[in-house]
Amino acid sequence: MADKDSRSHNKEDSQPAVEDSRPIGVFDSGIGGLTVLKELALQFPQENFLYLGDTARLPYGSKSPHTIRRYSEQNIEFLQSQNVKAIVIACNSASTQVPEREFAGLPVYNVIGPGSQRALEVSEGLRIGVLGTRATINSQAYTKQIHSLNPHAQVFDQACPLFVPLAEEGWDSDPVTNLIVFRYLSSLMQNQIDTLILGCTHYPILKNSIARVTGSSIQLVDSGEAIADWLEEDFMAGRLLRRMNPTPRQVDVTTTDASAHFTELAHRILKPVKADDFRVVNI
Amino acid sequence: MADKDSRSHNKEDSQPAVEDSRPIGVFDSGIGGLTVLKELALQFPQENFLYLGDTARLPYGSKSPHTIRRYSEQNIEFLQSQNVKAIVIACNSASTQVPEREFAGLPVYNVIGPGSQRALEVSEGLRIGVLGTRATINSQAYTKQIHSLNPHAQVFDQACPLFVPLAEEGWDSDPVTNLIVFRYLSSLMQNQIDTLILGCTHYPILKNSIARVTGSSIQLVDSGEAIADWLEEDFMAGRLLRRMNPTPRQVDVTTTDASAHFTELAHRILKPVKADDFRVVNI
Repeated sequence: MADKDSRSHNKEDSQPAVEDSRPIGVFDSGIGGLTVLKELALQFPQENFLYLGDTARLPYGSKSPHTIRRYSEQNIEFLQSQNVKAIVIACNSASTQVPEREFAGLPVYNVIGPGSQRALEVSEGLRIGVLGTRATINSQAYTKQIHSLNPHAQVFDQACPLFVPLAEEGWDSDPVTNLIVFRYLSSLMQNQIDTLILGCTHYPILKNSIARVTGSSIQLVDSGEAIADWLEEDFMAGRLLRRMNPTPRQVDVTTTDASAHFTELAHRILKPVKADDFRVVNI
Repeated sequence: MADKDSRSHNKEDSQPAVEDSRPIGVFDSGIGGLTVLKELALQFPQENFLYLGDTARLPYGSKSPHTIRRYSEQNIEFLQSQNVKAIVIACNSASTQVPEREFAGLPVYNVIGPGSQRALEVSEGLRIGVLGTRATINSQAYTKQIHSLNPHAQVFDQACPLFVPLAEEGWDSDPVTNLIVFRYLSSLMQNQIDTLILGCTHYPILKNSIARVTGSSIQLVDSGEAIADWLEEDFMAGRLLRRMNPTPRQVDVTTTDASAHFTELAHRILKPVKADDFRVVNI
């Protein structure tokens, strides 16, 4: 009680923080991570967010592990320089190369853990499909993570290199996209999966086309939704401190390259969340 | 005559060069430029070649003019440091941002001029279609170049952002590719073009699918073939000196990122040309 009293009265003293107004940093190779930003911004309406899309060097999914790691470290360093309180890696290809839960003193959230855990929670028959970029599938990150959590689960994966350009072209719910989804998913369907991880943050943009092929009996797992649960757990446990400031929060979007096409798509993906600022940064 | 005699007898003296063994440098954002390298290597079987594919940062076609220019300059500087005798920009997106015919003292060949000239040579009705990446089409580089050569020509263009990923996925001559080609080309066909510039060095990989839609009445112009003619002209005019060495020539391929998928595709595209060396460089 004495402690509590002194804390409330001596505001000048350096006290343990009880709130943290710094933004949550979110990065991706491009626009796909905006699906994650949207989920987080909706789930945490008081939090500030700073998004970094490395659009000058996208996509990561066709690049080597070494290059993806190098670019990811540069992105984290940029966000750190902007004084964020946590890093969310809203990119599966980058997540496969940054397994750390902490980096440069900041808590780090990558999509592999949350996506794997959520898939095991919803799967009834433990037959789990994973879609991802070539880099993500080659890394076997999901397969290893799922097996470490439950060795009885069976994992079937498929690289879908055309999904990112289809999402970026804006051809969601298009007959051509349906056809390509059907092509990529046919072997997974033959393996009678009951759960499907959308292992790339671009893929929720194509969710309608994917659901049309999988039907209602296969559970789709969206990593953006799954990662929000992990942040909420850490807020509850006090590992992360919430922003308590009653003023409106700020959602800033930065990219490493300018493009009118990107800005237009970004607005579409973020809806109903509104970005307060769009700007280009050099990292 | 005295001059000629003294030249042939005093081999130790510094004489004007009559041959040049240095390689021709060729660069692209990725593997598409290999279609140009192949044409050049076949047409000039005595010449050494050094190819640079900036695979770590591909694709260029979705990037801004400023970023494309910056990356292109870095590529040219790398090739210059490798002692090349000329630079071939085997990438349309990069060509739109490097209009110079000379850079750092080296002759530079970009694909826009040769492609435009060839199109005007083969077009009978002067109704010319241009396919390209978003960056190439937005730049209007072909339209301006064609109009500067012949103001009476009519140009119809179309960005095809999915062609590069389709080529890189290896889905050439595939029903899905045919469908996407048909979608992109329909407005050009309605405009009754008689000639079609493949304004991206990836597109010759999809030539079968494109030709299936255009039929035999539309002339396809491949920039790789067109640029070889310009080099030959400069060899004839003495602006470029040929390699005269009777030893086998060398074709070296470098990339800024390693990938087994890339190497496999590269062999397929280059056939029947064989690369002597594949290696990764950091630029």
